[in-house]
Amino acid sequence: MEFSQQLGLYTQRVNDCLDLALPSQHTRPERLHDAMRYAALNGGKRVRPLLVYATGECLQIEPAKLDPIAVAIELIHAFSLVHDDLPAMDNDDLRRGMPTVHRQFDEATAILAADALQPLAFQAVAVSSALSDREKVGIIGKISQACGSLGMTGGQSIDLASEGKSLTGDELKTLHSLKTGALLVVCVTAVCDLSRDLNDDEITALNSFASSIGLAFQIRDDILDVEGETHVIGKPAGADERLNKATWPSIFGMDASLKQCAELLNDGVAELGRFGERADGLRWLARYIVERAK
Amino acid sequence: MEFSQQLGLYTQRVNDCLDLALPSQHTRPERLHDAMRYAALNGGKRVRPLLVYATGECLQIEPAKLDPIAVAIELIHAFSLVHDDLPAMDNDDLRRGMPTVHRQFDEATAILAADALQPLAFQAVAVSSALSDREKVGIIGKISQACGSLGMTGGQSIDLASEGKSLTGDELKTLHSLKTGALLVVCVTAVCDLSRDLNDDEITALNSFASSIGLAFQIRDDILDVEGETHVIGKPAGADERLNKATWPSIFGMDASLKQCAELLNDGVAELGRFGERADGLRWLARYIVERAK
Repeated sequence: MEFSQQLGLYTQRVNDCLDLALPSQHTRPERLHDAMRYAALNGGKRVRPLLVYATGECLQIEPAKLDPIAVAIELIHAFSLVHDDLPAMDNDDLRRGMPTVHRQFDEATAILAADALQPLAFQAVAVSSALSDREKVGIIGKISQACGSLGMTGGQSIDLASEGKSLTGDELKTLHSLKTGALLVVCVTAVCDLSRDLNDDEITALNSFASSIGLAFQIRDDILDVEGETHVIGKPAGADERLNKATWPSIFGMDASLKQCAELLNDGVAELGRFGERADGLRWLARYIVERAK
Repeated sequence: MEFSQQLGLYTQRVNDCLDLALPSQHTRPERLHDAMRYAALNGGKRVRPLLVYATGECLQIEPAKLDPIAVAIELIHAFSLVHDDLPAMDNDDLRRGMPTVHRQFDEATAILAADALQPLAFQAVAVSSALSDREKVGIIGKISQACGSLGMTGGQSIDLASEGKSLTGDELKTLHSLKTGALLVVCVTAVCDLSRDLNDDEITALNSFASSIGLAFQIRDDILDVEGETHVIGKPAGADERLNKATWPSIFGMDASLKQCAELLNDGVAELGRFGERADGLRWLARYIVERAK
């Protein structure tokens, strides 16, 4: 089956797993659980879980071992969006076309819901019956590194500190590689750990693929923010410009940004040659990420 | 050596381990790392780490295996204090006699610093060279459960929802058992997992000890909040009353609260009988928690 056909199945799969991992909204404290479920189950493209499953296809890892990784990374992503949207951060009212968590609930609930999504991510891995203890420790080590101060949260911190300042291209690249790249890369590298017969060259190739596609993802996001309309990207268009944030198009121009995105896609896909047809899912997903309209 | 003499050594030990676990304030993003270190290294009684080490003495676990547990739980505790102090939550300006993190830095930095302390906790366990993979997974599972929506963060959520409402004693007990109790209990139970020759009765006894002392700790906190002066407890006295929060003395009266605290101490210590002198540290710490003046 083509990966594009698998897409719906994998999306459903991770949604079901997230639903199971999240406490019911009828469990006390109900409002907190309601907010956690609102944050994690309310749409979203599930790009990170899809990257996990596509890497799993490439390395022939059984999907049951991929589920906790996909769930954990998506919970971390969901937590970060809730906090990024807070008044003290980006102060966004809309996310995926719906009120942000602090608008739908309240600020304290939003802070706490995200705080509780994070340990749930590590718990999803810790309690999995499909992974060995060695595998769990490796995955938790990688994800905790990727989402901490030297990864995603560090990137958000640099992003906030950069508002209103002019950045060089290299600085923006560093920012993107932390804020968005680290978690996208770990979708691939965490799965690599589950394969017993990958050699160093293959690991390097998959790492490079993930870095290229991670950067392309963020450039595409920047492009869509400049180009997009509210109803298409689900948040007010030009939000970055409003906050006076540096974007790829604002530094390099729109034409160069589109070109760089295409080059990163080519570079990334070129790394997959050695994996043959097994990497078709990753190829499809890479194109989907770079060419998506929202 | 008496545990009271060991106290300073254990406190220094966990402070050194925390210092090592936290990225330097000279590592990028510097302001974020500065705030993380401010939150985690700025005083504090280290009650939770001391409970970890005292349980380790009782069960004759080597201290090197206790360090990552002590560090992880203290980082989780530090993260929770930073978010609890935020304007959208308890809106506190002082913590341990110093400006709270959002007052010393800014609100966004406080949110992110705490967000990054949390994964650092799980990482400290994941990368430890003293623990086996099986032990790490058990510890991470327990701590992630204790700090999530069914533990500490859930307790804070119920606490906020209870402001201005009258609670029954049972409701306040549930709140305390989640908000403070869950993390104190895991200081003991996470160490139990490291012992190979504990029987079920012994595990139950240590669990009961931890629950009693955990509740006594919070009742003592409530008493100190009512009685205390700003310079002694390091936060404005009567803060709970100001927020119209239910406290143990407000429901049961001061005399009954003092009596209940003493009873919980007795009940807790009674559970330790079977462990003989090895539990002297836990006995000392229990008294310290219940009789402390700040």
